[in-house]
Amino acid sequence: MKSYRKELWFEIPRRRDFINITPKIEDCLKESGIKEGLLLCNAMHITSSVFINDDEPGLHADFEKWLEALAPEKPYSRYKHNTHEDNADAHLKRTLMGREAVVAITQGKLDFGPWEQIFYGEFDGKRRKRVLVKIIGE
Amino acid sequence: MKSYRKELWFEIPRRRDFINITPKIEDCLKESGIKEGLLLCNAMHITSSVFINDDEPGLHADFEKWLEALAPEKPYSRYKHNTHEDNADAHLKRTLMGREAVVAITQGKLDFGPWEQIFYGEFDGKRRKRVLVKIIGE
Amino acid sequence: MKSYRKELWFEIPRRRDFINITPKIEDCLKESGIKEGLLLCNAMHITSSVFINDDEPGLHADFEKWLEALAPEKPYSRYKHNTHEDNADAHLKRTLMGREAVVAITQGKLDFGPWEQIFYGEFDGKRRKRVLVKIIGE
Repeated sequence: MKSYRKELWFEIPRRRDFINITPKIEDCLKESGIKEGLLLCNAMHITSSVFINDDEPGLHADFEKWLEALAPEKPYSRYKHNTHEDNADAHLKRTLMGREAVVAITQGKLDFGPWEQIFYGEFDGKRRKRVLVKIIGE
Repeated sequence: MKSYRKELWFEIPRRRDFINITPKIEDCLKESGIKEGLLLCNAMHITSSVFINDDEPGLHADFEKWLEALAPEKPYSRYKHNTHEDNADAHLKRTLMGREAVVAITQGKLDFGPWEQIFYGEFDGKRRKRVLVKIIGE
Repeated sequence: MKSYRKELWFEIPRRRDFINITPKIEDCLKESGIKEGLLLCNAMHITSSVFINDDEPGLHADFEKWLEALAPEKPYSRYKHNTHEDNADAHLKRTLMGREAVVAITQGKLDFGPWEQIFYGEFDGKRRKRVLVKIIGE
């Protein structure tokens, strides 16, 4: 069994954004040399997400509006977590979008359906944060 | 390390439905011959889900009503994604229900608790769509 | 390839609670002797969760209030599942929080960011329930 590990770093200038990281993940997979196995990609921070969906700006605007309706950022005082921090909503939004994606590796490729793309979802940006890529297989 | 891959195809006649795919997954596992490892089962489309819950029709009706309350299908105009499409709600519903399940394989069986069953959740049906089963182990 | 399996049992005296199980998972990992691989930790019951977030009591109070707003426990009659049972809300809450976490194992440790901790989320307690830990790797 082979294993591979890489950290991807981000510094998103806005509080919230969605970044298509599929090309970076494909680079990791190539570098790993693994042909058959499983790939785990997870946010290493608890106010951001890794998720799989469509790379369509209208949908991303819908996600932003929907997440704000289900877990509003403000007023900050609505959350008990917000004493020294103001990011309770980011913990909730990340819960809705998910921490991680597990992807099958087949014949050296991400084994994806036609529209699947991997995104980094930032909900408390303006600072350096990380995503972990771990691949195991042969 | 052994690896196994299979696509399961569905064509659900309604827009939304939940299908118990546990027997099909068990068939895959038998076919793989893998006794110890991990099984990934994921929707290959971004408007459907794979999730684990109870096979109880009342609960499934509750899921349907709950998902419609949190991410309503209509009016289609409420979503920016719905220009050439009408399925933005399906992307959101799938986000709530999840893309994938990872299941432990122990002694050649799905290592499940007493009520765990795997479902395909369709949120934009009436066409052919796929689920991926990938198993790695020994 | 090595594999390891352990059940962790809980009997939470309240209907709902969040328990930090990171030290127990670390014990499992040590016991397994696995240095590189993937660890799956999942609820074996469909009314409880395993998820990764922050060990901060204010945030946990926010989660409780938020889950009750999105999937209220009462009135029990609002759910079709609640004929012989009263736990439909627990199935929905567990769906929001997730069934499982997959964690990278690197150099014999949980490969975590600075604040990641693993929690057992109970939504229908007062009885004995289980979590599964499965590790594969080398």
